[in-house]
Amino acid sequence: MRSVEEICKEAKEARYSLSVLGTSEKNSIILACADALEQNADTIVSANAVDMKNADEKGISPAMKDRLLLTSERIEGIASGLREVAALADPIGECVSGWKRPNGLYIEQRRVPLGVIGVIYEARPNVTADVFSLCLKTGNVTILKGGSDAIHSNKAMVDIFRAVLSEKGFNENYVSLIEDTDRAATTEFMKMDTYVDLLIPRGSAGLIQSVKRNATIPVIETGTGNCHIFVDESADFDIALSIIENSKTQRIGVCNAMESLVVHEKIADDFLPLLEKRLSSYGLTYFADEKSIGDFKEKDVMPATDCDFGTEYLDYKMSVKTVASVDEAIAHINRYNTGHSEAIITDSYANAEKFLNEVDAAAVYVNASTRFTDGGEFGFGAEIGISTQKLHARGPMGLLALTSTKYVIHGSGQIRG
Amino acid sequence: MRSVEEICKEAKEARYSLSVLGTSEKNSIILACADALEQNADTIVSANAVDMKNADEKGISPAMKDRLLLTSERIEGIASGLREVAALADPIGECVSGWKRPNGLYIEQRRVPLGVIGVIYEARPNVTADVFSLCLKTGNVTILKGGSDAIHSNKAMVDIFRAVLSEKGFNENYVSLIEDTDRAATTEFMKMDTYVDLLIPRGSAGLIQSVKRNATIPVIETGTGNCHIFVDESADFDIALSIIENSKTQRIGVCNAMESLVVHEKIADDFLPLLEKRLSSYGLTYFADEKSIGDFKEKDVMPATDCDFGTEYLDYKMSVKTVASVDEAIAHINRYNTGHSEAIITDSYANAEKFLNEVDAAAVYVNASTRFTDGGEFGFGAEIGISTQKLHARGPMGLLALTSTKYVIHGSGQIRG
Repeated sequence: MRSVEEICKEAKEARYSLSVLGTSEKNSIILACADALEQNADTIVSANAVDMKNADEKGISPAMKDRLLLTSERIEGIASGLREVAALADPIGECVSGWKRPNGLYIEQRRVPLGVIGVIYEARPNVTADVFSLCLKTGNVTILKGGSDAIHSNKAMVDIFRAVLSEKGFNENYVSLIEDTDRAATTEFMKMDTYVDLLIPRGSAGLIQSVKRNATIPVIETGTGNCHIFVDESADFDIALSIIENSKTQRIGVCNAMESLVVHEKIADDFLPLLEKRLSSYGLTYFADEKSIGDFKEKDVMPATDCDFGTEYLDYKMSVKTVASVDEAIAHINRYNTGHSEAIITDSYANAEKFLNEVDAAAVYVNASTRFTDGGEFGFGAEIGISTQKLHARGPMGLLALTSTKYVIHGSGQIRG
Repeated sequence: MRSVEEICKEAKEARYSLSVLGTSEKNSIILACADALEQNADTIVSANAVDMKNADEKGISPAMKDRLLLTSERIEGIASGLREVAALADPIGECVSGWKRPNGLYIEQRRVPLGVIGVIYEARPNVTADVFSLCLKTGNVTILKGGSDAIHSNKAMVDIFRAVLSEKGFNENYVSLIEDTDRAATTEFMKMDTYVDLLIPRGSAGLIQSVKRNATIPVIETGTGNCHIFVDESADFDIALSIIENSKTQRIGVCNAMESLVVHEKIADDFLPLLEKRLSSYGLTYFADEKSIGDFKEKDVMPATDCDFGTEYLDYKMSVKTVASVDEAIAHINRYNTGHSEAIITDSYANAEKFLNEVDAAAVYVNASTRFTDGGEFGFGAEIGISTQKLHARGPMGLLALTSTKYVIHGSGQIRG
């Protein structure tokens, strides 16, 4: 087993040859990996069976076990995902801008790979293939640190990818898995800034906080979403009800799900009972402020604490806050949100503009569901995560988020005066 | 004296009102600050005299004292710098891209301020005004942590800026100085990621490393430059000599100065004596590899160690490495460089292309001086530093590096299927 430092060092050495590979060579690797996954489905399913057996012994929840499970159908799905990535346009080599200086220097800004990308994630083996294909497509070397629960599944897949690279005459270190499942190995990995250019944590808020605290590699924070919907006094109730139902209940455990309702006090008493009725089949619990608590049946509602307004429930729960104006709604959202996705339901042009301009988040919506904050829904074709920070990438991250640029300068003997 | 946390918290509160200020309001603040600096030049010079007296007592070097000194002429220069920033185009509000989705959602990516920007720097009081004006121009709140040697000068200037903000009816917390000169205050500041969106260290390699190790705020690394010039076998010697003289000697202590010479072995014996003659008046010391050491007079040369190849001298010293090919030159540079600026002097189209494509640095040059890596020389009008990392900003950072984007989505009731 290679040490964490050996893996990172060898990844950095591999990046130069990968960074200059042409699009057709990169695509041929990705397509061969897709084929190899399908051809070796039995090997992967057997490895996954070990992880599933360990999960049983640990008493892991059914939801977690479902995420961990790989079947031949799921492996076909993963292979299809790789083929979709191969079909995407390659952003590397794009001339982002270019101009001539008065002294005759021609300066061009070109899109280039970042170099080495590390991803730390929890027990979803499909992430292994997704991340590798997106990184390879953009000329980046991948280092994966998956959850220990999926170690056998991940190792089986990465071994297949490395074998394909090797057979095709490429450096197998274009992708590596850190197999050491000790927590110390993860912490050591976070500090490999000499070799790794970007670290993306994907998983629970606890994982992300730990990476933020310990990493010396630049990090992109992903995923936490305390998303609000503000129902303004001029909102169309039908639109508001259908958007809230979609944002809150379509998938309960995702970061772009709605967690907090903000409602104009002039319509609260009319709107909230309609909402409660519309969502009655889901068994929601409402954490309501003093002004709105009476609008709900006693069995559905609890008094909201300050803590509720800041909570990403990822459950059939929502906080409810009444406000006297769009300004108060914006102030509430800017205080409690996590910079993910926020929506206003309104028919007021002025309030829509104010909300779009003043709410500080990666994505702000008028009259649409927060569930659209997603690389696929935005039309990016693929997604490596949703950034909730403001540096480098904000919102859904497609292939461009995995690139940097460099300045290329053509001279004819110029010196600085 | 406000605590570090109070300053950061109040900065975050102030950012919402600053982020929505129009260009003319922001410019009027910057111009008023320029006037106020000139009107209060005596106050600033008196405060600076205290710093200068302390510097004398500490026995600080003449070069450091020159950087610290403020005179009424220098204050006029700082005020002119502010007026130039006011004259720049405001990038905030730009529509970076926009498209319509099949479901009718219109998605627009708009340029917005980052929020709160922290800058940690050493004893150059002009940085105080530069950074504040660039941050304000881009709608960002500024928190400054200057070196303790310049504390009185910095406080005098920031007090003037805060008074201007207050007189004009704006929140004076658009700019703050951390006055606590204790090292613990600096470390505390680096961990204020709840309130601060970006931290830029400007100064010595030691400062930058300390920030990288300790910060939980996202950091942009600036400034270290072990810049190489490769003289290829087809190089025009006159061009090579003039570019090396310019890159190495025009300003000795800057990050875009040349530190390392790489030379093709076929021309080394002819070229290096000419170079030594050309640079003879500067009293350079060459740290040469085995093949080239005999090309220099004994008094000028020392044998190069591995450590020399990796050193940013910032002095009249350079390492010299002979290579057998452009590939060996590229491999040497990619091993030892710091990702700043690298140049090839050549008349070979193929080697120029290879060098531009394969050298991994923020700026790569053919037949031009590395000294051009600079916001002003690139035509950006202003510079907050030169990024040597690949995330968010790479190379000279102008106003765009101080911005983020957000997605603004106009819907008409869309929900996700």
